[in-house]
Order: sequence, then structure tokens, then C-alpha cells
Amino acid sequence: MEIASLGEFGLIDHLTSGITPQNASTRKGVGDDCAVIEYEAGKQTLVTTDLLMEGVHFDLIYTPLKHLGYKAVMVNLSDVYAMGGTPRQITVSLAISKRFSVEDIEVLYGGMRLACEQHGVDLVGGDTTSSLTGLSISITALGEALPEDIIYRNGAKKTDLICVSGNLGAAYMGLQLLEREKAVYYQQRRDAGDKANELHFEPDFTGHEYLLERQLKPEARKDIIGELHRTGIRPTAMMDISDGLSSELAHICTQSHTGCRIYEDRIPLDYQTASMAEELNMNVTTCALNGGEDYELLFTIPLSDSDRVQQIKDVHVIGYITEESQGRMLIARDGGEFELKAQGWNHMKKGE
Amino acid sequence: MEIASLGEFGLIDHLTSGITPQNASTRKGVGDDCAVIEYEAGKQTLVTTDLLMEGVHFDLIYTPLKHLGYKAVMVNLSDVYAMGGTPRQITVSLAISKRFSVEDIEVLYGGMRLACEQHGVDLVGGDTTSSLTGLSISITALGEALPEDIIYRNGAKKTDLICVSGNLGAAYMGLQLLEREKAVYYQQRRDAGDKANELHFEPDFTGHEYLLERQLKPEARKDIIGELHRTGIRPTAMMDISDGLSSELAHICTQSHTGCRIYEDRIPLDYQTASMAEELNMNVTTCALNGGEDYELLFTIPLSDSDRVQQIKDVHVIGYITEESQGRMLIARDGGEFELKAQGWNHMKKGE
Repeated sequence: MEIASLGEFGLIDHLTSGITPQNASTRKGVGDDCAVIEYEAGKQTLVTTDLLMEGVHFDLIYTPLKHLGYKAVMVNLSDVYAMGGTPRQITVSLAISKRFSVEDIEVLYGGMRLACEQHGVDLVGGDTTSSLTGLSISITALGEALPEDIIYRNGAKKTDLICVSGNLGAAYMGLQLLEREKAVYYQQRRDAGDKANELHFEPDFTGHEYLLERQLKPEARKDIIGELHRTGIRPTAMMDISDGLSSELAHICTQSHTGCRIYEDRIPLDYQTASMAEELNMNVTTCALNGGEDYELLFTIPLSDSDRVQQIKDVHVIGYITEESQGRMLIARDGGEFELKAQGWNHMKKGE
Repeated sequence: MEIASLGEFGLIDHLTSGITPQNASTRKGVGDDCAVIEYEAGKQTLVTTDLLMEGVHFDLIYTPLKHLGYKAVMVNLSDVYAMGGTPRQITVSLAISKRFSVEDIEVLYGGMRLACEQHGVDLVGGDTTSSLTGLSISITALGEALPEDIIYRNGAKKTDLICVSGNLGAAYMGLQLLEREKAVYYQQRRDAGDKANELHFEPDFTGHEYLLERQLKPEARKDIIGELHRTGIRPTAMMDISDGLSSELAHICTQSHTGCRIYEDRIPLDYQTASMAEELNMNVTTCALNGGEDYELLFTIPLSDSDRVQQIKDVHVIGYITEESQGRMLIARDGGEFELKAQGWNHMKKGE
């Protein structure tokens, strides 16, 4: 079905039908000039937003629309958790070119609604418009937290332990794999010449399924926030790892006026990440430091919480905070010391 | 200066330097995973968002970047006022193609910051990324209101008076004028052939300055909200006119389960709007009903507030609310009755 046949308001009605608020704080969702929210007395409101552009942040050649919707929501929820808050509402704005049908957008929304359901989040508004080229997705997430529970980036102190959840670099390796198979596909099409449309291409993902999942279906680490509460640990600084560990560590150190020392052999890696890096002749540590899109949590805790943090499965201590004058250092496996460069996953350099 | 030379974080630092919060509710602005907001006890939070795409919502051939920034913020603030709230914070996400320099984005931001200053609003966060083609702007505005002050679209009652602020159709006429001069410019370039680059084009806007202002620099009607408070009028339903009077009236009537009767000769028009419509051989009433981008307020008030509303300069009673079964009717100057069609200013049909 063509989107123009429904019009903007028809499309919004169609996509948002059956959405009923899960949160008492959602007083009015889709359908007025604004959504209306009321958190419990004493709570603060957290707000974060992301703008995703086709061709820069995602490639629809290998990104299923449902996964894209899921991921677009998840990366915003991740920011709310990374402040120590609970996400409650999102708004979704879409700009859609004529290439997309109503059914396509339903699938995209399906992924968004799934992510919302899993985290008890209400979709309360947004905007839907046309685009001359491609798909753009802008999501804003709102959450709540008690003021004393909010964790900023600027509270890290000398001797604090540096922790990360999960493992790093896998999403980046997943992206490399998808890009490789895309290149193979285009090559086979070129080779097939006139018969390109008859080509039956089977990408080779065997043994790398985890990498694909990490790239295409990241999960915000709500579970880790729960574990920190359970064990009574209050991080001194926290953020999620979206641009790569080096870049995020630089943010925490800059805002906290500290340095850091992290150990290469402590950086958590999945076996598939390491094996894919070897296959592609890439340095796996570089991928883990600068790869981005991990959506794991990076946080610092007082040294006195060292025993407690070991009770939490899937959290790894990778180093400690130092004085600012000592710089941001990586201690390599062989004992060599290198300055951490916040290379990051810079979208600004990717676009044309 | 090229944007890539600063990088994403450098650009954000550059653009947001010197921004200091004006509102006590802004607890943390730009610089963490989320902004943190805390409204006074008892207040509800209003949220609205818009996504503006180059080529669909704006044409940089005739839209100065400073005006674009100003308007992009203003249209969101207008939504907060249209709920009876006070806007307090915005987030700004930009996707920028390589065509734009750091200086361009500074100018765009300059317009945004001006709109914020005029309305006491804090810019608290956002996202900046690259785009393969053109400029995309996504703004989310947050505001606050006491629950009893919030005005929804669904409260209009039979016999309520229908009011609009300002005048209608001028922004649409401004757009027609800009499009006409653009066509003249392109024609002159074609005629000039090899000498196109030497062409000195002077668009002819004489006598139409007000129309340009309405198109390029709309103002959110905070003043009308103030006047409603002053005179003790509480609208039963309210929204801002962004898609055209017909379309907005349809929203209020649908959500309030009412009909309406409005009078053609009561629809407020500026002299320039009428004269431009005549020049372009267009029906001025159609332009006022369906033109869009007026950002005036449309609201309904109890019949008993009839005297009070006349104390408010620049508010016009254009008709009244009826039972749903009586439909949505326009009474023409000659007494003829026509059903109002919510044609609206449909972005979905504009894109390719």
C-alpha cells in the first residue's frame, strides 16, 4: 500500500492503533499537540535523543526493518539506563521516501513496539513526514530517576575501578562481516552480467551468528542496572559505550578531571570477535577500543566495592582511575604502555 | 571550516559553548547520556517533536539558515503553548551533508538560540551527525503546566465559540511568492546561458514583506496564552494551526465529537494575503483554510466568555461548535453552506 494513500494522519493512526500506555506517568499519548507526562513527586526527568540516517547509520541492504526499529529504540533506552534511570516514554519521528510502503513502515514500527514492550516503555508521540531520499529516524526517550540515583560522567575518583559489562568489539566485527558479504554480493552480480537478477546469493555467516546479533539487535543493559542496585553498588560515573571504549573513557576522564589505566588483557572479548578479527587480519584490541555500537555500560566504582562487583556476572574490571596528569593509558599484554587515543566511531567523518 | 575537522564532539562543544541554563528546572544540559530536568512538584511535562527535511519542509534557495533555525524551534514551542503550557527545554538533532560548513551551522544555531532566548527556553541536548544528502533537523520541546491548565483538543462543547488568533493564509502566500521568484530566477539563469553566473538577480518582494515574514519567521503565540490567563478565559479545546484551519478544526471536532459552523467573512485575513491571492488568481479563503504554517492558535471557549474574549486584541470569533450530526460547515459570504474538507498541508504527498 502506498503511504500517500493514507496521508500523514492516516498513517500515524494506523501505526499507533492498539497502543495503550503501560506507565501511570503517561497521561496523554499520541493525538494532541504534545504528549503529557507526570512522574511521581521527587523524580527527575531524563531526556535523550538520536537521529539515524539511512546510508550513514544503517544500510537496508543487510538491515531488516524490524531490527532497525528495535535497535533505534534500544540505543536511546541504553542512554537512559546509563544515567541510572528507568525509561518510560519515547517519541518517534520518521521521514520516509516513496520507496517505502505502508507495510514496510509497519515492520519498522513492529521492531520499535517490541523494544518498547520489553522495557515497559510507551510510544507517546512523534512526527511522520516524507523524505526526498531514504529513511530518517529520530527518537527521543524520556525516563525518570530519583535525583540521588542519577549517575553522571563526572564523578570518577582516583583509585576507582573501571568496569565494563558484556564484551566489546562484537558489533563492529558484525558490521565488517555484513560489509564483506555485501561486497561479495555486488561482485557476484557484476560477474553474472545479464543474469544478475537470476542470482541466488547466500551470504556466509556460519559461525559468526553472535556478531550479527550484536550488530543488528543490541540490547540495553537494564539487567546490569538491576544488579548494581541488588549488590548496593553506586557507580561514581557511568555511560554507555556507543562510540567505542577509548572515546567513552575519554569523556569520563575529561569530565571527572582524571586519568586512567586499563589493561589490554582485561578487555572482555567474545571468541567470535577474536576469530573474525584474525580472519580479517585486524587487531582485535583496536576493534574493541574503537569499534563502537557495543551499547554496554562503562562505569567506575569505589575500590571498596571490589568484592561486591565480583558478584555480578558479566561485569569486568578492566583498570582503574588515576590522576589527570598520568594521562589515559593502555597497558599492553607485553607490559608496554600506550596512550589511549579517542578515535571513536565518528559519524561526521563517515558521511559525504 | 569543514565540519569533519572538528568532529562530532568538537562541533557540539563549539555550538553549545556559552549556553547557560535559564530555567531552574534544567538540572543538566548538554554533555551526558541524557539531559536532566526537574519541574516543580505538581507540574506535568509536555513533550512534542518535529522532523524537518530539506526539500520537503524548507528550500535553502530562499530560506536563510538563521530563519530556518528560528522557525524550527518556534514551531515546537507553538505546540507547547497550544496545550496551555510553558516551554522550558529543547533538544536539537541535526544531520548535515558535506555541503555545509561549520559557519553555516553556527548561523543555523544562531537562529535556534535566538528563539530560545526570546522564550526563556534551554537547549539541553541533541545529536549531530552526517547526512548523505541535505539537512535534516529534529527538535523535541519539553514544557510544563499544572494539570488543570492543560488544554486538550477533545473538550469542545456544543455552542462554544470558535476563535483564532492573528490572521490566516499569509505564510502560505509567502511561500507562493518565494516559489514564484525562484522560478523567475531559474528562468533568468536559463535565458542567460553561458553568462548565468554573472546574473544579478533581484527578487521582487515589494509590498509583500509581511507575507515573507510570516513564512520565514513565524512567532509562537505566547502572548495570546498570557491574554487568556489575564482575562480568565479557559479554552475548552485548543491547538495551533500548522496544517491549515480546516484540518485543525477537523481534529478538534473529531476528538470532541462535535460539528462546527464557521463563517467565511469572519476568517481573519491580512490585506497583503488578499492582494497576493488576487495577483496569483487564487481563492483567498481556500488559502486561509488549507494553507498551513500559520502557527496561530485555534481554540473554543464557552459562549459565556463572549464578552471577555472581545477584550483580547488579535483574537477573532469565526463561528461556533455544533452537534456532531450537523457536520463541519463553512458559511460562505453569499450565505451558501459548504462542507469543510480537511485538505491540510500534507507533507506525505509532497515528497517523492
